[in-house]
Amino acid sequence: MANQEEKPVAVAIAGLGLLGASLGMALRGKPFRRIGWARRETVRRWAEICDVCDVCFETPEEAFAVADVTILTLPIPQIIQFLGRYATAWRPGSVVSDAGSVKSGILSAAAPLAARGVYFVGGHPMAGTEKSGPESAFPELYENADVFLCPARGVPAEAVELVASVWRAAGGGRLSRIDALRHDDLVAHTSHVLHIIASALSLSILDASDEETTLERFRGCATGFRDTSRIASSSPLMWRQIIENNRPAVLRALRDFECCCNRLRDLIADGDFDAFEREFARGKLLRDSWIEYKRQEENDERTGD
Amino acid sequence: MANQEEKPVAVAIAGLGLLGASLGMALRGKPFRRIGWARRETVRRWAEICDVCDVCFETPEEAFAVADVTILTLPIPQIIQFLGRYATAWRPGSVVSDAGSVKSGILSAAAPLAARGVYFVGGHPMAGTEKSGPESAFPELYENADVFLCPARGVPAEAVELVASVWRAAGGGRLSRIDALRHDDLVAHTSHVLHIIASALSLSILDASDEETTLERFRGCATGFRDTSRIASSSPLMWRQIIENNRPAVLRALRDFECCCNRLRDLIADGDFDAFEREFARGKLLRDSWIEYKRQEENDERTGD
Repeated sequence: MANQEEKPVAVAIAGLGLLGASLGMALRGKPFRRIGWARRETVRRWAEICDVCDVCFETPEEAFAVADVTILTLPIPQIIQFLGRYATAWRPGSVVSDAGSVKSGILSAAAPLAARGVYFVGGHPMAGTEKSGPESAFPELYENADVFLCPARGVPAEAVELVASVWRAAGGGRLSRIDALRHDDLVAHTSHVLHIIASALSLSILDASDEETTLERFRGCATGFRDTSRIASSSPLMWRQIIENNRPAVLRALRDFECCCNRLRDLIADGDFDAFEREFARGKLLRDSWIEYKRQEENDERTGD
Repeated sequence: MANQEEKPVAVAIAGLGLLGASLGMALRGKPFRRIGWARRETVRRWAEICDVCDVCFETPEEAFAVADVTILTLPIPQIIQFLGRYATAWRPGSVVSDAGSVKSGILSAAAPLAARGVYFVGGHPMAGTEKSGPESAFPELYENADVFLCPARGVPAEAVELVASVWRAAGGGRLSRIDALRHDDLVAHTSHVLHIIASALSLSILDASDEETTLERFRGCATGFRDTSRIASSSPLMWRQIIENNRPAVLRALRDFECCCNRLRDLIADGDFDAFEREFARGKLLRDSWIEYKRQEENDERTGD
């Protein structure tokens, strides 16, 4: 965190896929020196030529050695691996962060950094598309995105603020500090469980026992199926990695869902359709309230409230 | 089915909500005399003034007495009620159909018509929006919609063709004859079960145990939740009626879903993430194939293949 007043903050971006390259683009013209690293040489060259980064280094060590703040925009297993493998590459007093979708395992992997005087602040910008790779990157990806920050124990406020300033400069919306376990439980419910349900729907509806039924199902599915199952088209590898690193919380979220689903099923089996209609009305009220909440939130952002 | 060559076919439309009023609008200028009936006098008057129907009658009996073909565009419980209550109102040789989302119960209720020489052909145009009422009607509702036809046993081909001609004139796309039980099992899988899942997701995610968690969940839900839960905002009463009239098939579809969902859960609990990723990849492949199938189908419709 040295030299913040004299020269631009050096931000290392490790991994130049959708998240990393979009971050580099979003920081164009902002008071940051963007130091990139990507595994492939062609990507590093592209990033320099196309002003995604100010400079790219061949090895992570070279990038980390000059960084005031590092953002690891890598798949979760690589984030965990890098925190171990490159622990000695970061300068004492520098700040390390990431953009992974789960936080507890990553914070555990970052624990050894503290002893070396390196500050870890887990990060999770709620942004992404169903695509991946540098070719999918665009500078507006983080605009108005909620960003969660999970600082490791004992990290000073200025280190958290440095990471926050990166996301603010990149266009991020509301920044929230949250405990890592609480974060993982939250995203298990609001996001991870949905991918399991969407996949189970795709499998149970489209994979019928015989060809005639399969064709009928393909014909019979319409807009309801299209929307309910949309995220089943996401990357199986990426979602395997996310869910693999958030097992207890995902299983809890799945249990909560099963509980509600079983209750509806029992009401159907018992023929108690008055209670069934009441539950459906409660589900509708909750979702309609959420739509209204998001609409209000967008309005507030536009008017600066 | 008399007088088809001399004068336009008289089609009675019983119920002028979204489905009935849209049907009247879609048949404008087509070789049908549109005879409307609605419970409310204001709706009957509106239908006449706005050319939704050529004439409206005060009672169902009056409309049915002059109809060559009747389409019951009413909620399922009323369709069943009308088939019993007005069985003697239809002329022998005339054809009765409906637009309800389930077919087995309706065909059972229509059984007594056969003894009176009235032909019943169950119908289900796959069209609708999340809205309802005459004020939501529009003439393009049925354009390219798949229409299922479930004739009662012994109904002559000309009776089926008469109903088909109504939907064809209204803009309907592919017409398929299907057994009622098979139809109900199909829509339980491709549509009804999705409403239960969407409602269970809305309930399990947004209805948290305390206020702080609820607020976090409202904030944390994004586009994944928006799409997966969209149909949870549909009419609780309408979906209660549909599911109440399709219990065994809906319970079967729910069992199929639970089976796939439980398998994914067990793989997570067992930590077998290679198999989990393979299942996710299979779900993605199925959904991507479905998207491609629908795209191809739309292309074929445009080019007239």
